[in-house]
Amino acid sequence: MESDENSGGAMVLVERQADVVTITLNRPNQFNALSEELLGALANALNHVRTDTSVRCVILGAAGKAFCAGHDLREMRSKPSLDYYRALFTKCCGVMQSIQSLDVPVIARVHGLATAAGCQLVASCDLAFAAQSARFAVSGINVGLFCSTPAVALSRNVSRKRAFEMLVTGRFVDASVAAESGLVNAVVPDESLDSVIAGKVCEIVSKSPAAIRHGKYMFYRQLEMPLTEAYAFAGEVMAQNMMEDDASEGINAFLEKRLPTWGAH
Amino acid sequence: MESDENSGGAMVLVERQADVVTITLNRPNQFNALSEELLGALANALNHVRTDTSVRCVILGAAGKAFCAGHDLREMRSKPSLDYYRALFTKCCGVMQSIQSLDVPVIARVHGLATAAGCQLVASCDLAFAAQSARFAVSGINVGLFCSTPAVALSRNVSRKRAFEMLVTGRFVDASVAAESGLVNAVVPDESLDSVIAGKVCEIVSKSPAAIRHGKYMFYRQLEMPLTEAYAFAGEVMAQNMMEDDASEGINAFLEKRLPTWGAH
Amino acid sequence: MESDENSGGAMVLVERQADVVTITLNRPNQFNALSEELLGALANALNHVRTDTSVRCVILGAAGKAFCAGHDLREMRSKPSLDYYRALFTKCCGVMQSIQSLDVPVIARVHGLATAAGCQLVASCDLAFAAQSARFAVSGINVGLFCSTPAVALSRNVSRKRAFEMLVTGRFVDASVAAESGLVNAVVPDESLDSVIAGKVCEIVSKSPAAIRHGKYMFYRQLEMPLTEAYAFAGEVMAQNMMEDDASEGINAFLEKRLPTWGAH
Repeated sequence: MESDENSGGAMVLVERQADVVTITLNRPNQFNALSEELLGALANALNHVRTDTSVRCVILGAAGKAFCAGHDLREMRSKPSLDYYRALFTKCCGVMQSIQSLDVPVIARVHGLATAAGCQLVASCDLAFAAQSARFAVSGINVGLFCSTPAVALSRNVSRKRAFEMLVTGRFVDASVAAESGLVNAVVPDESLDSVIAGKVCEIVSKSPAAIRHGKYMFYRQLEMPLTEAYAFAGEVMAQNMMEDDASEGINAFLEKRLPTWGAH
Repeated sequence: MESDENSGGAMVLVERQADVVTITLNRPNQFNALSEELLGALANALNHVRTDTSVRCVILGAAGKAFCAGHDLREMRSKPSLDYYRALFTKCCGVMQSIQSLDVPVIARVHGLATAAGCQLVASCDLAFAAQSARFAVSGINVGLFCSTPAVALSRNVSRKRAFEMLVTGRFVDASVAAESGLVNAVVPDESLDSVIAGKVCEIVSKSPAAIRHGKYMFYRQLEMPLTEAYAFAGEVMAQNMMEDDASEGINAFLEKRLPTWGAH
Repeated sequence: MESDENSGGAMVLVERQADVVTITLNRPNQFNALSEELLGALANALNHVRTDTSVRCVILGAAGKAFCAGHDLREMRSKPSLDYYRALFTKCCGVMQSIQSLDVPVIARVHGLATAAGCQLVASCDLAFAAQSARFAVSGINVGLFCSTPAVALSRNVSRKRAFEMLVTGRFVDASVAAESGLVNAVVPDESLDSVIAGKVCEIVSKSPAAIRHGKYMFYRQLEMPLTEAYAFAGEVMAQNMMEDDASEGINAFLEKRLPTWGAH
């Protein structure tokens, strides 16, 4: 995970405070462009979270002036083969999907620019909060490369005419438009970004780990099912959730008008 | 349908004015929590509408301070078996889906609180109007029970990041946020809620019963189909609709610049 | 393509400026109602664009006071057979789908009224811009004919409760509501409609033709796939896009801080 260009720093910084992991894209001089090395480091960091059942929440942020400028175009141009590009996009799409397949909520902390695959990262997180000065674009079209894989995530967050316009014009939209569109949950003053996210994390870690795990497992799967199938699936998940000690404790606490004490993970 | 706790009152009140049925959840002291008994009474009321082809529209409201507080947690805790929970959620999801499978529009009249399965009820109706003071939450997460079945309905009304945030935080959103999000059609001053809904009902019952029936039958089915299949299906429904006397009458009236007279149901 | 009622004018006007085709519905005295003849002329015009690979963008507008008032009710009433209606809706749905299957972006230029199949035309375009005075309705319900085929396009642009309300009431919504709902990209002052669209066209034709073609091909297809399949498909399209000369040129130009020169179509 070493990089010359980063003065020997890691491509991705992983910090842990209590049960919360903060993953920071750390290629600031390249606006955190997703080189193969950075993608690999991000994949590793997410996989590490997956295997550590004590983690409760992940914050995905970035160092420097930008959140993420998408793929590393210089690297891509230096390896011009169809097989290479297939493998690269497969790898990148795998990282995006691994965010949704994690057990715990992943929150994007967005500042500066989030473009192309960087915008896709935001769309792929469960929650996203943006600094007022943040801007978003799927700007591949400006270099002759339609943002096709980012479109997959974007069009599942934003209405189709707005998504198509962003894709075909490559234009930046500001954070308030991103919030209205559904791409981020909220836009906050730059100086409040960390405290707003800390508050949201606080809320999340105060909940039952088992319940969050059941819920995230269920949420994206049911979205892809017809209604009847979705209900059958969600009903089964919810019945299993009711059998957890945390559900007994939570409901007892509610009925007894006291605070619940959740079990371990 | 009798309940001790309701001083012998019915769990669900069913009133009829002309061709409009108002179903009122009537367990006000328990914020209309969906006990098995109340769910059964609601299922019966909806089934009764289904068999009575003279009904044109249904209003679903609630007595007391809240619209509906979701499942009855005390009852759920008293029967702690996986089979029981499976059966309960199957029953509840069946009621939710039966709203969409009715021939006629169902309008949620939302005041006070609509939480968990109560919020799901709102999401499951064809139309929903909320008093300004109404608040919405999928708050199961606060008692260790992720609102998985409510998530099915919620996530088909509201963009995914906003739905996920509501589910994972359990926070209340107010009526104006619910309207912006797509969970309800509009928010109105508390004192205007009934007159706004009466106006909407008036519009609906002034239309051709046959046309509404064709339309509601088509609407939710086509949403689950790929575009080409959806068009083939909707085209066939619309061709059948054109063969109804009401379509001939309606178009003739339009061309002759007079009001149409619709046939019976 | 001649019509008596149009004083011998063509049902559809096709103008070309450089690589941009403007298709104008030209049955102004009937508010551009989609008679069989007009549908056929529109289908021909779109097919002509399909076979001419030099076209970069299409503007779909209309002559007279309205954008399009939907089907021609007088014509429909004069041919009352199920087979006729089936064929008519099949033809109309084919035209709507052919907009999405074109290689190039199609922009709706909406003024006046867009009702029923006219509203469906707007929903079927890739982008849509509306004059402030434009109004939208799926008003078939007022003549006993639920707008079932328009519902297919509408419900893929607009949240379901709002779509259902429009369908079941037949009410007009104004342009600003259409924009908030996702039915159009933006609402602009009437006198700015052409210049706003010209600006958008300018942006689009400044991009790589190959990249736009890859993107539009990918966009609607991936929307109908589960996430994993959508990513596999979009990844393959994007890898193919990377092998185009335009992508090499675009990325080189970006790295060399110069403007790109795109290849021919």
